[in-house]
Amino acid sequence: MSPEFNLIAKYFTRATPSADLGVGDDAALLRVSEGHQLAISVDMLVAGTHFFHDAAPYNIGWKSLAVNISDMAAMGAVPKWATLAIALPEINEPWLAEFSRGLFACADRFKVDLIGGDTTRGPLNISVQIMGEVPTGKALRRDGAKSDDDIWVSGNLGSAALGLAHLQNKITLDSEVAEHCLLALHTPMPRTILGLALRNKANSCIDVSDGLLADLGHILEASNLGATVALDNITCHDYLRLHLDKPMIQQCVLAGGDDYELVFTAPESQRHAIQQLTQQLNLPLSLIGKTTENLGIQVTYKQQMLDISKKGFDHFG
Amino acid sequence: MSPEFNLIAKYFTRATPSADLGVGDDAALLRVSEGHQLAISVDMLVAGTHFFHDAAPYNIGWKSLAVNISDMAAMGAVPKWATLAIALPEINEPWLAEFSRGLFACADRFKVDLIGGDTTRGPLNISVQIMGEVPTGKALRRDGAKSDDDIWVSGNLGSAALGLAHLQNKITLDSEVAEHCLLALHTPMPRTILGLALRNKANSCIDVSDGLLADLGHILEASNLGATVALDNITCHDYLRLHLDKPMIQQCVLAGGDDYELVFTAPESQRHAIQQLTQQLNLPLSLIGKTTENLGIQVTYKQQMLDISKKGFDHFG
Repeated sequence: MSPEFNLIAKYFTRATPSADLGVGDDAALLRVSEGHQLAISVDMLVAGTHFFHDAAPYNIGWKSLAVNISDMAAMGAVPKWATLAIALPEINEPWLAEFSRGLFACADRFKVDLIGGDTTRGPLNISVQIMGEVPTGKALRRDGAKSDDDIWVSGNLGSAALGLAHLQNKITLDSEVAEHCLLALHTPMPRTILGLALRNKANSCIDVSDGLLADLGHILEASNLGATVALDNITCHDYLRLHLDKPMIQQCVLAGGDDYELVFTAPESQRHAIQQLTQQLNLPLSLIGKTTENLGIQVTYKQQMLDISKKGFDHFG
Repeated sequence: MSPEFNLIAKYFTRATPSADLGVGDDAALLRVSEGHQLAISVDMLVAGTHFFHDAAPYNIGWKSLAVNISDMAAMGAVPKWATLAIALPEINEPWLAEFSRGLFACADRFKVDLIGGDTTRGPLNISVQIMGEVPTGKALRRDGAKSDDDIWVSGNLGSAALGLAHLQNKITLDSEVAEHCLLALHTPMPRTILGLALRNKANSCIDVSDGLLADLGHILEASNLGATVALDNITCHDYLRLHLDKPMIQQCVLAGGDDYELVFTAPESQRHAIQQLTQQLNLPLSLIGKTTENLGIQVTYKQQMLDISKKGFDHFG
């Protein structure tokens, strides 16, 4: 048995009850439920770009799968299967054990089977592909927003970006705030249940990976619309709320990536139903603005227009 | 529009008639044909490990998709959809244009739609996932070999490894031989049609990516069998045939990776039908040995046992 096969067998092979054939052949085999479309997304995480070289491998494992599951949530799809391709500079068994533990913790939490993979030698690079199911025609697409839709966002925004700023020594947080923010940064919780609940309510949806305004911008561009957004209405952690006058904190909330909350648009007729979801899911859902025929995004804070020159984060920016 | 979106739009977005939704949303959406399983495989190619840093980007593009399509061939599946995740050290537009040209040349040749992807900054790394369809229960698996099966291999073996040896200045080939070998190394042709033709004939199948003996070894291990193989019976290019006495040439044929031919086992009752495929597909199919109850692989050359200490290539070997 070759070393590559040993690595896959030792760290990445588990029972895959949802697949007809899992890890270990030329391909995995699975069956998509009748009347469903297969939803597919891929994200690549690179050391130095998406995480620090010395980041805890457990967190890298969790996050590399979580960011993909988040794409399923944003489509209103049920995540089911994932593949992993990973390049490693060396065979570091303690690192692999922790990475694998984090990856499978996330897989177990969201009931995803790892059905195939590839390990190779190279600078640390993790490419995960996720596959899920959605009833045909029910996916939450970016191009479905209508003019005068309500714009909603789930959970707290800005925490992950603030955690990153803390790690970069741009700001020093109290230990309690730091803990909250680093948890948000390292082990995001994809909003899969919300995504499913929005299938018949939202007109469009995306997850906040690059920053609220950048990701909302993708919906608006695909739907050929603009928007007005009230910064005051965005739910965020008490610390951010308290310092919301500061440009850097505004930046975290509006342009911070890595929150993996959902931003979505829905007709006003769904407003009550969506408000009820807040209680049902125990998850804040904030009504933050409206889509408009006029293109571009206008952000207000305390009823004043805000200058938003830097809109988001881009891995080639 | 962010630079990342520009790259995907400019180089990696084409019409995807086989998908309900292609590049540009949180996920692609597709429908699997009724009565079919989805076959899924992923391969990661890393600069310095799988290709030279200065390799022609057209060839890298072709090969990164071709090696994945080869996995579909080895399963007897029809390749249909692919995703690409690519890390690039910089935005080099001429490089991207050529890479994209090679990738889509292969995609067009094998009727595969690129339905999604991710671009990011990092050391050059290309991760392609392929998805295809196979009628439920008809996939060619590794664990299906039976004792006393014929062992077959398609095409010429050893050319790609010889081409690599030429590039590494371990051997100097005449220009005509070099051209043949470099073509085999850089732009392999996956045996998809053969894979389909074998669905009701072969008991097991794998593609030769790591080397004949290593890959045959995976079948034998999964099927709990051994094998005898006659080196003399393996089809190879005239140059290799002529020098088959030399250990280095034997190494190319038996342990050279990157040929992307199919090695498969079938009952003797299928021998005539498989021989007929040689004419129908205009592709040599060589009967090279038999599976055995005794574990391990025994290789003969001119009716003498051959010492096979180095069995194959491993990216962590």
